[in-house]
Amino acid sequence: MSRPGIIAAYRSTLTLPAHAIELSLGEGNTPLIPVPRLVEELGGGFDLFIKYEGLNPTGSFKDRGMVVAVAEAAGRGMQTVICASTGNTAASAAAYAARAGMKAIIVIPAENVARGKLAGAAAYGARIIEVNGSFDDALTMVREAAKKHPVALVNSVNPFRIMGQKTAAFEIIDELGSAPDWLCIPVGNAGNITAYALGFKEYDVKKKSGRPHLLGVQAAGAAPLVRGAPVEHPETIASAIRIGNPARGAEALVAVKESDGMIVAAADKEILEAQTRLAHEGIWVEPASAAGLAGLKKQIAGGLEVEGKRVVIVCTGHGLKDPDIITLPEPTRIEATFSALERALAE
Amino acid sequence: MSRPGIIAAYRSTLTLPAHAIELSLGEGNTPLIPVPRLVEELGGGFDLFIKYEGLNPTGSFKDRGMVVAVAEAAGRGMQTVICASTGNTAASAAAYAARAGMKAIIVIPAENVARGKLAGAAAYGARIIEVNGSFDDALTMVREAAKKHPVALVNSVNPFRIMGQKTAAFEIIDELGSAPDWLCIPVGNAGNITAYALGFKEYDVKKKSGRPHLLGVQAAGAAPLVRGAPVEHPETIASAIRIGNPARGAEALVAVKESDGMIVAAADKEILEAQTRLAHEGIWVEPASAAGLAGLKKQIAGGLEVEGKRVVIVCTGHGLKDPDIITLPEPTRIEATFSALERALAE
Repeated sequence: MSRPGIIAAYRSTLTLPAHAIELSLGEGNTPLIPVPRLVEELGGGFDLFIKYEGLNPTGSFKDRGMVVAVAEAAGRGMQTVICASTGNTAASAAAYAARAGMKAIIVIPAENVARGKLAGAAAYGARIIEVNGSFDDALTMVREAAKKHPVALVNSVNPFRIMGQKTAAFEIIDELGSAPDWLCIPVGNAGNITAYALGFKEYDVKKKSGRPHLLGVQAAGAAPLVRGAPVEHPETIASAIRIGNPARGAEALVAVKESDGMIVAAADKEILEAQTRLAHEGIWVEPASAAGLAGLKKQIAGGLEVEGKRVVIVCTGHGLKDPDIITLPEPTRIEATFSALERALAE
Repeated sequence: MSRPGIIAAYRSTLTLPAHAIELSLGEGNTPLIPVPRLVEELGGGFDLFIKYEGLNPTGSFKDRGMVVAVAEAAGRGMQTVICASTGNTAASAAAYAARAGMKAIIVIPAENVARGKLAGAAAYGARIIEVNGSFDDALTMVREAAKKHPVALVNSVNPFRIMGQKTAAFEIIDELGSAPDWLCIPVGNAGNITAYALGFKEYDVKKKSGRPHLLGVQAAGAAPLVRGAPVEHPETIASAIRIGNPARGAEALVAVKESDGMIVAAADKEILEAQTRLAHEGIWVEPASAAGLAGLKKQIAGGLEVEGKRVVIVCTGHGLKDPDIITLPEPTRIEATFSALERALAE
């Protein structure tokens, strides 16, 4: 089958609970794209691949964890999923709930939500509840709701989310034959880097496939794991990693240390430059997704030795998720004549 | 490899010219998603699948033809591609030109272009030229430019576009084992239905895989092939099929007749209903992509017999391509307390 989905592909490897239903929208099996021109720009002499997670069904890596979380919830008879989210998680939860024939409830803070970002969740039929409060208020409320009512919490505290996300590490190894030397990955709530670390570790135990050094990259204005303290007012254009107090920060720090890796910060300007550079390879990602390349570039400039190594950059979401960030250049404007076009082409 | 792309997968089947380069962003191999609940709603007793082409790298089926057109142009030494487009074609041309290390020039009519739709092309680094004229003016100009200058035309008059698009038919047969009984597909410029017809025909000659009846679906306000005459001012919310004089209309009519199929029209309201219905299966598509389901529903209601048949609906673009069409429901607004959430959940 073209894209069987990660449950069909990895059910036994993941040791999913037996009650988890079959569920798929064709998530996973995303391309691992070699980018040799970028290698040359970065000094040459190594292999570099982009794991393009924006090509998942709802446009982000969230689909890997969500399909497992929803399949598990459906299998134990739940009819409703709930989460607090303002972005990619909401769209993914809404899509997989729909696919499973369940209801989705998305709880969002009333302020600071770009309503355009909710189009996906609304399209998939989720019910949206706005709270006069912060994101943390919303998260507290849905956690309590899941304890006291028959609604399944699918925020990243749900362990099946991390379980599903591990499959991206499996795919990289299945494709390369063994683990890369470095994995460069954006870090917001730190769930994804944690999941990759677990995935690489598990495969290594089973298959001696090796484990990469982890290069986690935060946005400079939202870099609690680099600073060593929560950031009260995180600020970055990379909204998907605009998180001041990562839920899995401690786990991520342990994983990075174990891998002999590091967590670094990249400025918004560097992130946007990396976004443009990736798009000029034909790979359009949302800003947060470009953090991995921004961090790698910085580390190589700072002396990181990658000669002869294999490096994978994880790009977590599609550029279509945040088209407003793209500055449209002032177009050339011409009359509708061929000679006018010829003059423009000669410029 | 996870997604080798259609050139690697089908180079020999397509009999590509030897000079066409290897090129891929992981296009093709899109999911064929069974939708049994929809079957029940439509009367039951048949098999129904969605070919979700929105999961191509730039979010639409255009990538299949574009990768071949660009690979061929690059292979004969061209350094620039050019096209007239206001939407999905522009993004796809810009992405594959970038991937091939070429320049892309997009020529658009200055009026009636949603600048948001250009974000993709701009992100991928294309040069955008606005013309004080119509789309037809722009197309005439780029065709002449390609004749007189070393720029490769990648509008759908480029035969390699159709060649690449045939691979979607190949994939359906490769997955189902033989051709479906019906293929339901939106019809705008009529290139895609023509490409599917060719693909099914070629495989049938080689593999006796059978050929489906084609159900082409136009928007009622832009239905020249149903009316039998060009539509001077085509009007529909389904912008990707808002075409009054299809370039490949004649070919499409022949293909549909040969298949013992039909071309029908669906009202915008029916198309939007079908879009919502698909999203409620977890499959968010742009409006034009929902035309296939809208048409199928109408035909079944009108007596089309599908009992025991296999039906495939082609959904050409991702919902993220046109988020503004989604009506955001007025959200429930509550205080940041658990009891307020409980009251909302009880509603």
